[in-house]
Amino acid sequence: MTHKTTAEVGEFGLIDRISAIVKPTLAASPGLIAGIGDDCAVWHPAADMTEVASTDLLLEQVHFDLLTTPVKHLGSKAISVNVSDICAMNAIPRHALVSIAVPPSFPVEMIEELYRGMEAAAREYGIAIVGGDTSRSPSGLVLSVTVTGEAEEANITYRKGAEPGDLVCLTGTLGGSAAGLRVLTREKLIMMEHIEHNEAYEGSIMADLKEYSGAIQQHLLPLARLDIVRFLHERRAHPSAMIDVSDGLGQDLGHICSASGTGALLQENRIPVNSTARLIADELQDDALGWAIGGGEDYQLLFTMPHEEYQKIADNRDISVIGEITPKEQGILLKDIYGIEIDLQSLPGFDHFR
Amino acid sequence: MTHKTTAEVGEFGLIDRISAIVKPTLAASPGLIAGIGDDCAVWHPAADMTEVASTDLLLEQVHFDLLTTPVKHLGSKAISVNVSDICAMNAIPRHALVSIAVPPSFPVEMIEELYRGMEAAAREYGIAIVGGDTSRSPSGLVLSVTVTGEAEEANITYRKGAEPGDLVCLTGTLGGSAAGLRVLTREKLIMMEHIEHNEAYEGSIMADLKEYSGAIQQHLLPLARLDIVRFLHERRAHPSAMIDVSDGLGQDLGHICSASGTGALLQENRIPVNSTARLIADELQDDALGWAIGGGEDYQLLFTMPHEEYQKIADNRDISVIGEITPKEQGILLKDIYGIEIDLQSLPGFDHFR
Repeated sequence: MTHKTTAEVGEFGLIDRISAIVKPTLAASPGLIAGIGDDCAVWHPAADMTEVASTDLLLEQVHFDLLTTPVKHLGSKAISVNVSDICAMNAIPRHALVSIAVPPSFPVEMIEELYRGMEAAAREYGIAIVGGDTSRSPSGLVLSVTVTGEAEEANITYRKGAEPGDLVCLTGTLGGSAAGLRVLTREKLIMMEHIEHNEAYEGSIMADLKEYSGAIQQHLLPLARLDIVRFLHERRAHPSAMIDVSDGLGQDLGHICSASGTGALLQENRIPVNSTARLIADELQDDALGWAIGGGEDYQLLFTMPHEEYQKIADNRDISVIGEITPKEQGILLKDIYGIEIDLQSLPGFDHFR
Repeated sequence: MTHKTTAEVGEFGLIDRISAIVKPTLAASPGLIAGIGDDCAVWHPAADMTEVASTDLLLEQVHFDLLTTPVKHLGSKAISVNVSDICAMNAIPRHALVSIAVPPSFPVEMIEELYRGMEAAAREYGIAIVGGDTSRSPSGLVLSVTVTGEAEEANITYRKGAEPGDLVCLTGTLGGSAAGLRVLTREKLIMMEHIEHNEAYEGSIMADLKEYSGAIQQHLLPLARLDIVRFLHERRAHPSAMIDVSDGLGQDLGHICSASGTGALLQENRIPVNSTARLIADELQDDALGWAIGGGEDYQLLFTMPHEEYQKIADNRDISVIGEITPKEQGILLKDIYGIEIDLQSLPGFDHFR
């Protein structure tokens, strides 16, 4: 297989290749009038719907490391993190605009892999990749993704809106992403050492990673919880406030409380910690609960709901009630398994937790 | 004046400062429900309107040089180049999402200047800056801007749609941006030399730049031609095809012809060359027409229109007719002042022109 650089295929050659990969996603948008190929993407908003939009900028060495991140997974994740923001508004994602800046030496085949990952994620969520921008980067790979979505105005859920007495609900489990990152970082160090000593990096070491795959997958290929948004719509259950857990449970709950003017009391024993994260924490003598609360990047949905509203969704085993919204004066607290209340906001970072 | 780094104010401190600067722009959007501060921006699309969206990624050392670009101008330009794409669809810009990645040493005051430039441009065009993302950059400054807009579907103008016999029309003048860049690059080299030899870089040298300001301004602070889009709407004059001149007249006309399946014949003596560009070309013994045709970044609108439609706008002195659309077989030609026809597509770059 011959590898071509972007310089060899040129900007328009690259755009042609990218267009061919993302074209199948266009069918997902019933309102789409024009995708890639003009100065703008063009679409009809659905009648009586409200538009939402979110954007994320991802840089090599800041947000990802190509030594530990397969480029196809990176493409999927770039789409997922933005779709997760749309889900956090209780809205349905529709269109994506994707820009990349690529170092001159970057092989075109890797850019195609990146877009194949985006295409796979777009298919998963039913969104259309309708436009973007390509350019050269002087150093690392840069990715910028903007996703638009829509919702009935009455359905849109903000960070504000939580009321004392509301239940604090969480989808899935936490800590997997942070644990996966720890394993990948350790693996990278081992690999670098082998390279330094001119030793082969054997496949047998890689095989060991299998038992960690539940956490590694959560880090490399997180899924936005669009399934939960659809479920909430089906049950006509309306959260009073919602956010996605990208910064970490402690910080993201803080955003809800600060926007809503409330406090919160979480129960440690209710927090669903990823089981692989527990396994990894035991091995590394680290703290899985710390990862769950401070790790971030799990892209689960954190929402609040009055008790009676929660009855509509109580049968869903993938949604845990982890605490309750309290008046602002009571602060944002975690009651640990010994009954001791810890101020979640006073914890600067979760390496220092406990 | 004390300078703070982004590390000192932190991500949320920075977001607070940015929010304060862009907040005045929110009033421009009648449909806006939520701007910066939640997971997404939220707005009502205007009834019966079609949405358009464009995005651009700008990197230090690739798209701009902070040694020759005041950071406030950079902010304005980042907005303008995206608004120009919206204008190229014959649409009205509405909302902007802005992401930045900043080197750790970058002073917060410079980021504020950057956003002040964006705010000024947003005010100029009547758009609201409704969201974005901020992060650290390992090397240079990175800017990503997405702008959405709206138009009646019947008004939207694509690159395709030009027909043989249509007039080729152009707003303003060309070549100013390329000429301005030449002057700024020369000035940077002089400055670098002075620094190398430990000599003072005197203000008296700067003063000479005044006579070039018509070109330098065109490079640093290009204005998207939203005024022309509004004028076309007022006159109910509909272009058959349109693009903004970002890559250069030759290449951008090529995009219209290739999308429309046509050729074109331009008249050299009709091409409006920026007068300061002519002055600078004389001084540098360079070719102003080459800059006009190949230079790019002038952000004028290039459109085609049937003769009878053009009658509605013929009194506008800021719109020049520079040629005519021809059948595809005739190619894309420029007839020079001696009557010789040159193939515009065969010219690889305009340093080689003539």
